[in-house]
Amino acid sequence: MKKRADLIISGATILSMDADLNIYREHDLIVTDGKISAIAAQGKHDWQALQSVDAHDCIVMPGMINTHSHLPMSWFRGLADDLPLDIWLNHYIWPLEARLLSKSFIYDATLFGAGEMLKSGITMTNDMYFEMSAIAEACSKAGLRALISEAVIEAKMGADYRPSLFVLKYEEQFRDQPLVDFSLAPHSIYTCSSEMLKRCADAALEHGLLIHIHLSETAAEVENCLSEHGKRPVHYLNDLGLFEAKCLLAHGVHVDSSEMEVLQQKPVSIGICTDSNLKLASGLAPIKSYLEHGINLSLGTDSVASNNDLDLLGELSNTAKLHKALNHDPAFLPAIEALKLVTINAAKALGVEERRGSLEVGKDADFLIIDTQSLNSQPLYEPASQLVYATNSRQIRDVFVAGRQVVKEQRLVNLDEAELLQTAGRYAQLIREELGL
Amino acid sequence: MKKRADLIISGATILSMDADLNIYREHDLIVTDGKISAIAAQGKHDWQALQSVDAHDCIVMPGMINTHSHLPMSWFRGLADDLPLDIWLNHYIWPLEARLLSKSFIYDATLFGAGEMLKSGITMTNDMYFEMSAIAEACSKAGLRALISEAVIEAKMGADYRPSLFVLKYEEQFRDQPLVDFSLAPHSIYTCSSEMLKRCADAALEHGLLIHIHLSETAAEVENCLSEHGKRPVHYLNDLGLFEAKCLLAHGVHVDSSEMEVLQQKPVSIGICTDSNLKLASGLAPIKSYLEHGINLSLGTDSVASNNDLDLLGELSNTAKLHKALNHDPAFLPAIEALKLVTINAAKALGVEERRGSLEVGKDADFLIIDTQSLNSQPLYEPASQLVYATNSRQIRDVFVAGRQVVKEQRLVNLDEAELLQTAGRYAQLIREELGL
Repeated sequence: MKKRADLIISGATILSMDADLNIYREHDLIVTDGKISAIAAQGKHDWQALQSVDAHDCIVMPGMINTHSHLPMSWFRGLADDLPLDIWLNHYIWPLEARLLSKSFIYDATLFGAGEMLKSGITMTNDMYFEMSAIAEACSKAGLRALISEAVIEAKMGADYRPSLFVLKYEEQFRDQPLVDFSLAPHSIYTCSSEMLKRCADAALEHGLLIHIHLSETAAEVENCLSEHGKRPVHYLNDLGLFEAKCLLAHGVHVDSSEMEVLQQKPVSIGICTDSNLKLASGLAPIKSYLEHGINLSLGTDSVASNNDLDLLGELSNTAKLHKALNHDPAFLPAIEALKLVTINAAKALGVEERRGSLEVGKDADFLIIDTQSLNSQPLYEPASQLVYATNSRQIRDVFVAGRQVVKEQRLVNLDEAELLQTAGRYAQLIREELGL
Repeated sequence: MKKRADLIISGATILSMDADLNIYREHDLIVTDGKISAIAAQGKHDWQALQSVDAHDCIVMPGMINTHSHLPMSWFRGLADDLPLDIWLNHYIWPLEARLLSKSFIYDATLFGAGEMLKSGITMTNDMYFEMSAIAEACSKAGLRALISEAVIEAKMGADYRPSLFVLKYEEQFRDQPLVDFSLAPHSIYTCSSEMLKRCADAALEHGLLIHIHLSETAAEVENCLSEHGKRPVHYLNDLGLFEAKCLLAHGVHVDSSEMEVLQQKPVSIGICTDSNLKLASGLAPIKSYLEHGINLSLGTDSVASNNDLDLLGELSNTAKLHKALNHDPAFLPAIEALKLVTINAAKALGVEERRGSLEVGKDADFLIIDTQSLNSQPLYEPASQLVYATNSRQIRDVFVAGRQVVKEQRLVNLDEAELLQTAGRYAQLIREELGL
């Protein structure tokens, strides 16, 4: 008697990213009720399903998890590149945000960004911005998992902002949206008082939420923290008790070894944003030192305003190669280790490693089917190496979230791409008018 | 009365890369006899042609020129990554080359690599390997322009190798192949005696040929040169008279300011190989210092054995972003300047700037049509910025060389991709057997 499943992905090379880093060749991935029911040699199991997808000559890997993004910034891509950071922020990004942000602006930009992420193979993102309900709605519609946080900027929110009230509000609002959940985001040291940071830590601990915060993206931030608080950022936050909560520290470019010794004892992870840090000349994150200290690392795209795309696989490739050179060691961060940064270790960073980040029985069926029948992917000796060093993100043919297909043959299933492009054109026109371009 | 052309590309945003860096919007590119006849506002000229290609919502730019490659290494892609350089070379690459290289191996691998280059938007490459006639034949068949050189390795060629005889032979052989030409390639300081290097320089000067040589790719090369010859590589080669000839110096990672002062007075260019240098941990080329010394820079992919793809646009993006961070300046190497490295400055590096490297009347019709109607390319404020920071090389929709289409809708025109993939599979099997995998 056959066992019934919803979906069988057949004949694939499956990069499980499980604890033994098993790679299964000519195997089927079997999905029921949005979860993985089995991984079994092709033709050697008794599962059957109504839907099946041929994945011969394909690599199947876990959906990628992006640990730092600002989805609603889609319309600012490529707006004012190659400028010093202060001119870019003060003359372009901040004035535009002040004048243009609305619920519909944020919803539309998020829908567009969510589509772009899914096509790039990102199935979950950890996002920080404003208007969480609009972001949640757009991610749900696109079919993207998201951990959403409202950026707590004290000058904007007011000093009496109470994260606990916010938590109650969103627990209610998000109840019916299974793909989205939320976290708490004190934006950064330079936008929150120590009182506000403590309040966020307390609320996170009380409600079991992740803290999402920008940390030491630029050298100037560290200098400012030293002069205002007399301590480097990690010591300052540690003394406030922030790291008692589980934290995702975005960027972490300028962190010294005394700070690493603190971080290694806390439930914190770093979201490395290589491309954004390079393009804005913020610096080069000390990846090797983090790994030597046993600190969990993941990768984030940051926003398209500073990246300028959401191509996490390309970013992984850059990251892996760059840190070989910086450490004078071609054997540093081998391909399979690098892949952890966007799969299982990213799941750990967001506290979802029991459910996601690897392909194992019982876990969520969030996965990618990557076509390897492409000149730049052949010959194919080692799947992990080929993925990190030679695969173009456009080879991500199909994407599934919770067992449902969200990208099919590089086209979005839940969204109309022509409509998204039209919307982009409309906002670009609006922004050009605002800037008098 | 209408003027007759062969081909009109209509309604494009044309990134000319001419001396004024003109960008034409809604313009037509008009092609006759493989050359550019005109660039004119759409509908405001009296040219007509039998063939026309719609390029609305597209960017048209010069075909990219790759200044350092080893096309016949296609079958070694991803074979043994993440290893120390000496193990990679001594245990894998060199033994395989010694056992497997044949004319057909080289022809087949070159055909495959030429197809990969064209699909990535490379219309001309400067290649160094063995068996030039096989490489020339494959490039001609694919429709790729190539400047081909035989790697002069004295241990292989013998000390009595005479570059001048070689020149006479290839002048004859290449006469009927308009897309290919040749140069002289003393492989490197560590594989040629000073006598051989001098002989190559003399032959290059006598016949007006480019010298193509590896220079200071690794720190060890510099150390060896210092201990064997008592001088750093540039001083050693300069004293031998090599730089009297026009030279393309590949890599140039470890070059100090005393060497730059020599190079800036000579007809030499550097072929920066960012991705290969990162992946093999060779180092970070001093791009800013080269530019400050007024030394002409271009970009090379090196081979897929160390890169691991031929995605020159992606490599340009990495290069531009990386050197902003290394120089602590987000305004360093703006997008339009970066684009020179793969267009007009690469043409200068190879001595073909009168004919190629920019889109101008009278120049060769080597160009790319890039689709911008893609989520990651919208909104589109600045074409150059979008190309360098956000465009995926798979958006290179059509490629033309000498006015003939060689890539159409991301498919090769002159080669059968299914056949190329089959051939790759056959060689991969052979290599696995050789290595006992």
